[in-house]
Amino acid sequence: VLSASPLAAATGAADALVDLFIVLLAAKVGDELFKRLRQPALVGEILAGVLIGPSLLGIAEPTETLEVFAEHGVVYLLFWVGLETRLSDMKDVGGVASRVGVMGVLLPFAAGYGAGSMLGESPETSVFIGAALVATSVGITSAVLIELGAIATTAARTVLGAAVIDDILAMVLLAVAVGVAESGGVDVGSIAVVIGLAVGFVVFVALGGTRIVSRWPDLFHAPRFSESPLLPAVILCLGLAAFAAQIGLAAIIGAFLAGMVCAEMQDRHDFEEEVAPLYAFFPPFFFVYIGLEVDLGAFADLEVLLALLGITALAAATKFLPAWFAARGMGRRDAITVGLGMVPRGEVGIIVAGIGATAGVVEDDLFAVIVGMSILTTLLVPPLLRRALAAPERAAPS
Amino acid sequence: VLSASPLAAATGAADALVDLFIVLLAAKVGDELFKRLRQPALVGEILAGVLIGPSLLGIAEPTETLEVFAEHGVVYLLFWVGLETRLSDMKDVGGVASRVGVMGVLLPFAAGYGAGSMLGESPETSVFIGAALVATSVGITSAVLIELGAIATTAARTVLGAAVIDDILAMVLLAVAVGVAESGGVDVGSIAVVIGLAVGFVVFVALGGTRIVSRWPDLFHAPRFSESPLLPAVILCLGLAAFAAQIGLAAIIGAFLAGMVCAEMQDRHDFEEEVAPLYAFFPPFFFVYIGLEVDLGAFADLEVLLALLGITALAAATKFLPAWFAARGMGRRDAITVGLGMVPRGEVGIIVAGIGATAGVVEDDLFAVIVGMSILTTLLVPPLLRRALAAPERAAPS
Repeated sequence: VLSASPLAAATGAADALVDLFIVLLAAKVGDELFKRLRQPALVGEILAGVLIGPSLLGIAEPTETLEVFAEHGVVYLLFWVGLETRLSDMKDVGGVASRVGVMGVLLPFAAGYGAGSMLGESPETSVFIGAALVATSVGITSAVLIELGAIATTAARTVLGAAVIDDILAMVLLAVAVGVAESGGVDVGSIAVVIGLAVGFVVFVALGGTRIVSRWPDLFHAPRFSESPLLPAVILCLGLAAFAAQIGLAAIIGAFLAGMVCAEMQDRHDFEEEVAPLYAFFPPFFFVYIGLEVDLGAFADLEVLLALLGITALAAATKFLPAWFAARGMGRRDAITVGLGMVPRGEVGIIVAGIGATAGVVEDDLFAVIVGMSILTTLLVPPLLRRALAAPERAAPS
Repeated sequence: VLSASPLAAATGAADALVDLFIVLLAAKVGDELFKRLRQPALVGEILAGVLIGPSLLGIAEPTETLEVFAEHGVVYLLFWVGLETRLSDMKDVGGVASRVGVMGVLLPFAAGYGAGSMLGESPETSVFIGAALVATSVGITSAVLIELGAIATTAARTVLGAAVIDDILAMVLLAVAVGVAESGGVDVGSIAVVIGLAVGFVVFVALGGTRIVSRWPDLFHAPRFSESPLLPAVILCLGLAAFAAQIGLAAIIGAFLAGMVCAEMQDRHDFEEEVAPLYAFFPPFFFVYIGLEVDLGAFADLEVLLALLGITALAAATKFLPAWFAARGMGRRDAITVGLGMVPRGEVGIIVAGIGATAGVVEDDLFAVIVGMSILTTLLVPPLLRRALAAPERAAPS
């Protein structure tokens, strides 16, 4: 009866509406449930995604529309984080963040490559395992830190700065990995272009963009624009996110930088209040989407399950230890926070695995293992971060 | 160089980000330009869509992702309108609205069917021309009335009420049209089910839903939900919109009813302020998307161009006259406002044409004519409505 009508069948948009409704409802239920259990809400949303996804109930699956909404979710998440961040704050943590970023790339890559080789995988495949272990999902850590009221701390900023460096290095590694997988070699020239574009973009926006708007703080205001400055700000955010994605960086790096640029205009306008509803609406799609991508069936095979646990342990240890070591001068609690903050792989690990599968060097079981690792590292961190932040020197946010 | 990087090519979501950025930027430029020219902003946004669309610049085209964002645009538009509407207001205009709705369906259908027959089209095709002339796009009228500060007037409510009745009748006609096109006959039983579902849904939500929340005005509030009641309200809106679409009504009917239900809770919470950013963000996609669907090339053929002008005149006259006649007791200005308010066909005419094309009874030229008629009626109305509302008895909103 429900689809008896011709208009219902006419448009894919009508089906997309149903998907979006189911996902948002599931996210809200997971969120409310985990808040009542005093657990991180985003874990509840990811698990809601696993529950309604293809592995279990099967009432939702990862469609392209959901992917776009999920990407908007993490884009507005990082835009929001950028709004809370001033360039001067980032300069203060620059040295530590650089060390955290660089060390947190080299060790996981070496460990992933080594593990792949020891398990008898080809060098091409091993490079992908290494690349998948490298990429940090700063979206997850940011969401947890916002939830705990700790996004404006030095530790949080160190994680953000390290994540930018991390993402540039991870992109270079991935370019190498794809080059090796597809043509057996690496084109040094094109890699140099990729690096130059990425570094140039970040430096230009972070330094030039913030300087421009601090000189013209009314840039987005009447009479230049009618109504609120929300749309100009959102357009800047989408533009920089799209550009970042086109040059191979994560879209969220562009969104974060856009937020930092808008932060320089905060004295004139409260963007945060205006962006808040977008920030409430889109991110649940991001968390549920991560859950939708889990394939629990693959782990019925004991060997695959063991590989998952081993890779996850390796992924966690090789991010936590170097980050913690590089940040140890910040004090015990902050060093642990930075270390934990770099661990989640979230959507980035899943994207790398997808690229490897497309390039034909990541088989089904390995794909499931990398996706599983990405989600396990993502689920592990929120409760640990909450505990770390509740340590002495600072009261736990309620 | 821009797509040299592996991550850029990896996901369709990255390309969607570029599309969404271009569309939102074009919308904002068109909007600002038309405001400076003292013209309705949404006309600027639609024309921006024509400009960047396949007919002219070709830097954007109607993709499924844009369609979903466009549909969200009109959904939040009507949700917003619903928030401004109380059930008691609707009851006051019920009689006139019913007459406007019924007469505004019969005359356009008869005229479209007659015109098709006279032009030598088959009965199946003529039924589709009639059905395409029937459907009013209340989204366009609502947006103009909001822009002019006249959404809370009796005339606006009459148009909204008539649009609900109009949509139910249009759906029945379309069901008949598709039945005739596909099997040469009509299944009276299934049509009865469609009518029963539609009427039952509207009555149940409008009467039952508002009664429930006026009894429990804290339904969406703490401690039942943490944080703001925005997400529960949005979930209700998406749920009712999706359900309406599944039973063959326009999704916006569900969104409008959801807004009316939430309006009963307005004393406890200012939903409008929370929904405002979603209402600022999504609707531009709707207006630009309408513009993207124009195929100017088809009108290079003089015969097609003349057909377009004839059908458009017919479509405008057969909606305006009966609506104006049915509303004449409301006074001259209000009757003209109601008449004009029923004229835009917007996205609904385009959807009907698409269904006819899918069913194989609407050829390319006729498709272009129906789409062109939908857009011309949509572009004509805003300036006329502005002039009508500026007539005596009432100062023009600035």
